[in-house]
Amino acid sequence: MNSPEEIFSFLSRHIGPSPDEQKEMLEAIGFPTLEELIDAIVPRTVRTLRSLDLPAPLTESEALAALRKLSEKNRIFRSYLGMGYSAAITPAVIRRNILENPDWYTPYTPYQAEISQGRLEALLTFQTLVADLAGLDVANASLLDADTAAAEAMILSLRIRTPSNSKRFLVSPLCHPQTIAVVQTRAEPLGIQVDLRDPMDDDLPVENYFGALLPYPTTDGLLLDYTQAIGSLRKSGVTVVMHVDPLALSIFRSPGEFGADIAIGSMQRFGLPLGYGGPHPGFLAARSAYLRKMPGRIVGISRDREGRAALRLALQTREQHIRREKATSNICTAQALPAVVAAFYAIHHGPSGLRAIAEGIRTLTNRLAWGLGAMGIPIPPGPRFDTVAAILPQSESDSLLRRAQGAGINLRRLPSGLGISLDETTQERDLFDLLSLFAAERGLTQLPPPPADQEVSPIPPNLRRNAPLLPQPIFRENRSEAQLVRYMRRLAARDINLTTSMIPLGSCTMKLNAAAEMLPMLWDAFSQIHPFCPLDQAQGYQGMLGDLERWLKEITGMEAVSFQPAAGSQGELAGLLAIRAYHCAQDQSDRNICLLPISAHGTNAASAAAAGFSLMPLLCDGEGRLDLEDLRRKLAEAGARVAAIMVTYPSTYGFFEDTLPEVIRMVREAGGLVYLDGANANAFLGLCRPGELGVDVCHLNLHKTFAIPHGGGGPGAGPIAVSRALVPFLPSHPFLPLSSSSPLGPVSGSPWGNAGVYPITWMFLAMTGAQGVTQCAKVALLSANYVARRLTPYFRLVFHGRSGFVAHECIVDLRPWKECGIEVDDVAKRLADFGFHAPTVSWPVPGTLMIEPTECETKEELDRFCDAMITIHSELEKVRKGELPLDDNPLRNAPHTATAVAAESWPHSYGRETAAFPLPWVRERKYWPPVARVDNVFGDRYPVCAWPKSSEANLENE
Amino acid sequence: MNSPEEIFSFLSRHIGPSPDEQKEMLEAIGFPTLEELIDAIVPRTVRTLRSLDLPAPLTESEALAALRKLSEKNRIFRSYLGMGYSAAITPAVIRRNILENPDWYTPYTPYQAEISQGRLEALLTFQTLVADLAGLDVANASLLDADTAAAEAMILSLRIRTPSNSKRFLVSPLCHPQTIAVVQTRAEPLGIQVDLRDPMDDDLPVENYFGALLPYPTTDGLLLDYTQAIGSLRKSGVTVVMHVDPLALSIFRSPGEFGADIAIGSMQRFGLPLGYGGPHPGFLAARSAYLRKMPGRIVGISRDREGRAALRLALQTREQHIRREKATSNICTAQALPAVVAAFYAIHHGPSGLRAIAEGIRTLTNRLAWGLGAMGIPIPPGPRFDTVAAILPQSESDSLLRRAQGAGINLRRLPSGLGISLDETTQERDLFDLLSLFAAERGLTQLPPPPADQEVSPIPPNLRRNAPLLPQPIFRENRSEAQLVRYMRRLAARDINLTTSMIPLGSCTMKLNAAAEMLPMLWDAFSQIHPFCPLDQAQGYQGMLGDLERWLKEITGMEAVSFQPAAGSQGELAGLLAIRAYHCAQDQSDRNICLLPISAHGTNAASAAAAGFSLMPLLCDGEGRLDLEDLRRKLAEAGARVAAIMVTYPSTYGFFEDTLPEVIRMVREAGGLVYLDGANANAFLGLCRPGELGVDVCHLNLHKTFAIPHGGGGPGAGPIAVSRALVPFLPSHPFLPLSSSSPLGPVSGSPWGNAGVYPITWMFLAMTGAQGVTQCAKVALLSANYVARRLTPYFRLVFHGRSGFVAHECIVDLRPWKECGIEVDDVAKRLADFGFHAPTVSWPVPGTLMIEPTECETKEELDRFCDAMITIHSELEKVRKGELPLDDNPLRNAPHTATAVAAESWPHSYGRETAAFPLPWVRERKYWPPVARVDNVFGDRYPVCAWPKSSEANLENE
Repeated sequence: MNSPEEIFSFLSRHIGPSPDEQKEMLEAIGFPTLEELIDAIVPRTVRTLRSLDLPAPLTESEALAALRKLSEKNRIFRSYLGMGYSAAITPAVIRRNILENPDWYTPYTPYQAEISQGRLEALLTFQTLVADLAGLDVANASLLDADTAAAEAMILSLRIRTPSNSKRFLVSPLCHPQTIAVVQTRAEPLGIQVDLRDPMDDDLPVENYFGALLPYPTTDGLLLDYTQAIGSLRKSGVTVVMHVDPLALSIFRSPGEFGADIAIGSMQRFGLPLGYGGPHPGFLAARSAYLRKMPGRIVGISRDREGRAALRLALQTREQHIRREKATSNICTAQALPAVVAAFYAIHHGPSGLRAIAEGIRTLTNRLAWGLGAMGIPIPPGPRFDTVAAILPQSESDSLLRRAQGAGINLRRLPSGLGISLDETTQERDLFDLLSLFAAERGLTQLPPPPADQEVSPIPPNLRRNAPLLPQPIFRENRSEAQLVRYMRRLAARDINLTTSMIPLGSCTMKLNAAAEMLPMLWDAFSQIHPFCPLDQAQGYQGMLGDLERWLKEITGMEAVSFQPAAGSQGELAGLLAIRAYHCAQDQSDRNICLLPISAHGTNAASAAAAGFSLMPLLCDGEGRLDLEDLRRKLAEAGARVAAIMVTYPSTYGFFEDTLPEVIRMVREAGGLVYLDGANANAFLGLCRPGELGVDVCHLNLHKTFAIPHGGGGPGAGPIAVSRALVPFLPSHPFLPLSSSSPLGPVSGSPWGNAGVYPITWMFLAMTGAQGVTQCAKVALLSANYVARRLTPYFRLVFHGRSGFVAHECIVDLRPWKECGIEVDDVAKRLADFGFHAPTVSWPVPGTLMIEPTECETKEELDRFCDAMITIHSELEKVRKGELPLDDNPLRNAPHTATAVAAESWPHSYGRETAAFPLPWVRERKYWPPVARVDNVFGDRYPVCAWPKSSEANLENE
Repeated sequence: MNSPEEIFSFLSRHIGPSPDEQKEMLEAIGFPTLEELIDAIVPRTVRTLRSLDLPAPLTESEALAALRKLSEKNRIFRSYLGMGYSAAITPAVIRRNILENPDWYTPYTPYQAEISQGRLEALLTFQTLVADLAGLDVANASLLDADTAAAEAMILSLRIRTPSNSKRFLVSPLCHPQTIAVVQTRAEPLGIQVDLRDPMDDDLPVENYFGALLPYPTTDGLLLDYTQAIGSLRKSGVTVVMHVDPLALSIFRSPGEFGADIAIGSMQRFGLPLGYGGPHPGFLAARSAYLRKMPGRIVGISRDREGRAALRLALQTREQHIRREKATSNICTAQALPAVVAAFYAIHHGPSGLRAIAEGIRTLTNRLAWGLGAMGIPIPPGPRFDTVAAILPQSESDSLLRRAQGAGINLRRLPSGLGISLDETTQERDLFDLLSLFAAERGLTQLPPPPADQEVSPIPPNLRRNAPLLPQPIFRENRSEAQLVRYMRRLAARDINLTTSMIPLGSCTMKLNAAAEMLPMLWDAFSQIHPFCPLDQAQGYQGMLGDLERWLKEITGMEAVSFQPAAGSQGELAGLLAIRAYHCAQDQSDRNICLLPISAHGTNAASAAAAGFSLMPLLCDGEGRLDLEDLRRKLAEAGARVAAIMVTYPSTYGFFEDTLPEVIRMVREAGGLVYLDGANANAFLGLCRPGELGVDVCHLNLHKTFAIPHGGGGPGAGPIAVSRALVPFLPSHPFLPLSSSSPLGPVSGSPWGNAGVYPITWMFLAMTGAQGVTQCAKVALLSANYVARRLTPYFRLVFHGRSGFVAHECIVDLRPWKECGIEVDDVAKRLADFGFHAPTVSWPVPGTLMIEPTECETKEELDRFCDAMITIHSELEKVRKGELPLDDNPLRNAPHTATAVAAESWPHSYGRETAAFPLPWVRERKYWPPVARVDNVFGDRYPVCAWPKSSEANLENE
């Protein structure tokens, strides 16, 4: 019997294979102990000599108790800070059935359309919602936040600029401060000049700009009538971007009605908790003409082989994983789960509910403004939605801020006074409290009487929304909770997620998202904190982030961590910008080349481009190793201009290269810095420490290696860890004076990125501890090598390390069957018939599958997957031998829907049972794909990226 | 546009049909307004003249905030009170995937086996767990709590007594006080004499008893070696019942090893929150010889038509719904969901985990005892598990209790001193705190040193468990969390629940269990309170119950409410016992006849029998109305002996009888009291008030009418509301001195029954308010009449009220097709092919289906159901006309599994698509039954009611 410590350890439930199973797996590989296998896999040259120094692991309940205690150090004030973050009510039905439901938070990005129809449909609703609110044609399926969306819109504007060749971007100084700062951070490396000027200025040299960013409402709360300004800008070919509050758009005139080209913003207030800054769904909507140049994921409607309407990610050739440095953006993980919440928030409330919420806020805001005015406080006139800017002398502002703090209230300091932003949680008594604060300050003994209804100004006609709001049936069909829950469940049941079966995605580490890790995220103490609140109110978060920083520094061997990047791609960008800032500070601003192995993630290339670097590709040899000769040549050729090398470790080909130290030495000698892409960090936890190897910066995908779920395509979290040299160049933030000495601005609107999901990683590390986290890596390596060993008799494995072993993933070659007409996609789709999500398809090597099992899958599950692959091998062989026709076999026709299998006629060369139940255990676990093979070409040719408005075409009922 | 109040009202989401849909439904029925329809349905004679006086409805977030505030009045002390209630850790994976998952909490009792395999499997695991821990052959699928289980065991013992004819039951005085009290309450009406005597007494007249109840451990914590006592009792034919702590049994000798016949107890500490007393799964395990006489639900393994192992409720002929007053018990709703939690707790920890938890508690307990002993406090010697009884003078006890209270600690007062019961949450520092209390009291400045390991006494060999613990594979197969989650999800996906589709169960009111109603239940402030803690610590609960009492009194028009009954059946029993106590107090103890319409629920009959009444059936006329002539005759014949009449209103035949006032008058004139079964209360909320009609007692099924989910067969909640005359006769409780003046003892172990689920009803009523709750009833009536109208052209409706309308349910006659060989069951099973749960089958009229739509289903959902029924009608007609063969048609062969439909051969006279997709919309919502028609007879002939021990036979993998 094991010790109680082992029995109660979280690790014993996190690690899939039991000790006995691990033994069997080692035997199959031919090693007596795990230690010896690890020694054979991980080269001595990179292995760390010491054990990690992390706190001893806590049990599930100990960790929950400890984090609860920490969370109680957060003090929840009533927030009127606004600036794009508003308290919102998450309807209970959404909390319970989406946020508390692993069906929704554990799936992967919906690349495999056939097994992702549920979340694709929810994201299509999000796009429809955003586009309709904005009065524009199309919207993407979320971006990281409003402020990066502003930057993406600037870059999109640059891409579609008229021939003027301008590189100047107009930004209204009435945008939120953090929006301006993020736009500036992103503009600088691209050589874009940001002009802060009033877009309403009559003397504006409009012809100088390729684009303009107009806030609506402004940061001090006014909704300006941009009709003339936009007319004039557009006439000069300037692309007009409006930064909007989507809730305001349910009653105010939309960007489309103004004639704007693009709208960006955040859907946070559609039901997402504040979460100390994120995750929140940023968005970008645009005219349809811009569709093929838009950043981010876009869901589109296509059809499947059986003629059904079917959804899939559209126009992927825009994206980094295909187009690399020429991509429209480096974004890959976005904010899918938050976008799903926002979509359901709109479905839940429907158009009349949204309008009522918005009108309620507007009315209270106007009553507040009236009340303050009645006390003699100057309030700028003009239509407003949720924000009042009170003009006050500095001394009165100071005194009022102190008074407010004493009352548990946060107001915003403005240069001219104080800002007060209301939200859907604001009630009569809050209005009373607010007015009382000011009255007390002014020595008034009673409040002014409430204004008569007619005194609360209506929206002037020129700013009223005239377009119908959300005419699509989806926003009217699920009013009752019973109906809505069933709709949510039907969608969820269409998808494969981690509660169905393992998701063996190479480079994406789909590990267990344990329930104990997920619970704290929704505690009020974590979810109800505004990112710009005074630090002394957020000591729970700061303590938690402090722990995390210590732990991640220890794991990486680096000197400091920035939590600002909200995804891996943003981590890459932040790290590269830090490198860029470093070189500039050394007066080496001509170092603008980034060396990149040809096997790199497409994101790397896109991030390097976004950071203003030129790319220089590095070759790999026939065995997938970095070609040192080529590196030497490139350094000889361009060494003085080399800013950095970006390497992924273990390599994207899935093994530990023993030459990494040599590569690092060479680059550093040439004066370049080293960026390590941590996408594969799960393989080296506790085994290698990048800091010891001379790495300067590495990002960590907390949603891969550290147990944050993928959410169907985000939220992620991509903090970067840096060496001593780069510490002064970490991203700063306008609301964090301490970090302002860095020359690098913010990469994200919130100082700590997706802070709201960090408790998940805290729990993971608190419960695994040092030994545990190392054990995760070891078992991940064992599992991958076990899978490799089981598949070797059937498939060629493309690459392995010098000792003959793969790292945490393996690449299976399917090209041998290409000549008989079977594509790797056919195998990927056939796996769905077995109930499995496909591994990574055709990356990093076309015609292959990259399999990453993680440490969390039992031997039984690994064997089930291997058995499926081996069964598929026999089908492949039958096709090759002509035993199954080339044009009618279970691979080509996969996946098989229930409709097809239960049809009266069965025209195929193989049986129905072969189609549906290819192995005996499939019967007990049968997953039925809701659609047959989706036609990508058709969808991209005729892109439809929103629900149709007429009530006839409801996919659900088709 | 509606007003914001309407838009944000909970009611608008709770009520299924929108105002427009309601209009359409009224048109179909032929009424211009809902009011006019209601006037036509509800007779004037019973209609209340005034509106309910309830607080105005709150929105979802207002209600959550208000209840949060109330909950914060509960103060959570560390509880060492024990007595069958121990703090327990609900593993996060169970909390998230079972307790927070509507898939698990919304299903109905698994009468329809084919669509209930998931929860049946979990309950089979519960039975296996209980039987194995007890070392006995079989266990039932839960009872209401340990104390009623003791009473049920007493009654079972009486049923299987040897011919001695004894009516004396031996109860050890060392049982928990509330156990003794509940046993006494239940014994009295049955004429059983309870003797409180030491079972180890050598002079015990063993031959006098039919049964004996032995506590293990005793209430003061000792595990006695009953070998001799049990040997001697058994030799005299006395049935031996042991009241056990199931966690202790993982290391201590089991009842089976002692030779006991029956074991009872509570599985609460297997992961269930304290919840102020419930819901917790009571249990009863016994030798297999007693199987056919056991109370409660029993899940058994049988086979389906395709030869699969398949589960279903076994041996139902024991139960009240079939056997009425001759049933083995009146229990119907039990504690299914809590039992599922306990089963998964055992799967999660596995045998080694359970042993480690138990051994950890035992060690700390012995260290506590040693430490107290070392301070000179006398501690009775002997093996103990979790409880130490410290012998102290009264004054020192008093002082210590005060001191403990000050430290936030609850200790138990014993006649001889103080009791301290530890649990799985107790940690080293708790031990320190406890010892420190005593040290401080004794003026010691330091604690005794911890004992050496060997001084913590091991379990003596005669009390050690020798039997292997949980050898069934199910307890070893799901160690990793990923695996466990997938197993939970596979089980859930086998079942139809409210997230799948409407559950149109007559008399069971399967209404929406809204997420906002469900959230508070798991707040620590509600879940972590011991039922016997001082009242001043439970002011949140008391306040919440106070609100509920006011509201339920207002709704029923009665004078007081008892929350003690944990289910409808227990409410009936409590109400009847109150009536019995009332008559006794009037010196009319010869009033022992209960009048019962022949249409009554079987539970009514069984409850009346359990309350010691003789039954006198009342006839109904051909139209289902109570036969007043028959009533007059019966009263003339036996009026002086009539204790009560039990009527259900609206009647079990589903309509409002206008003669109810006349019936009540007649019975009351004869000196009888009136019991109103509230199972159908959803039809009269705000329309009729039983108190105004002269009813003396009515129970309310909070899990039917008031939104508590059914949990797959419990928890329920069955509070009773009584007239002024009965207030002094409500159930009392030994730990509630205030109620001790009642001559009626407790019917439940905890003073407020399943208090932990009452927040659900509080939320429901707070969010609906008076008008809303009345609207629920009105729309429920509208919906039932709409369904009736739609089905009338196809099926005969069996009964209706005098105005031609049904109430909230309608009964559809399927007997016309019986002559061509189609049974009502065939229709019930065929509905599963459409994705619907069957209505109530063959009750109250054989050969019929009773349909209750509730107010929560949209017109669209009602129409889908009606369309399914109409399609079935056409299939019935085809069989009748010979267009489909009698022995091979979609009804007879229903439900159709995926295996059958996707089989290579299809031998049927109708198509595969007819089988699987009988209507177009079924494709998008397809539910696949995991098994074909289950063979009940086979299973009852060869009952197997636990998982087999060998690892070969794992149903899951078969």
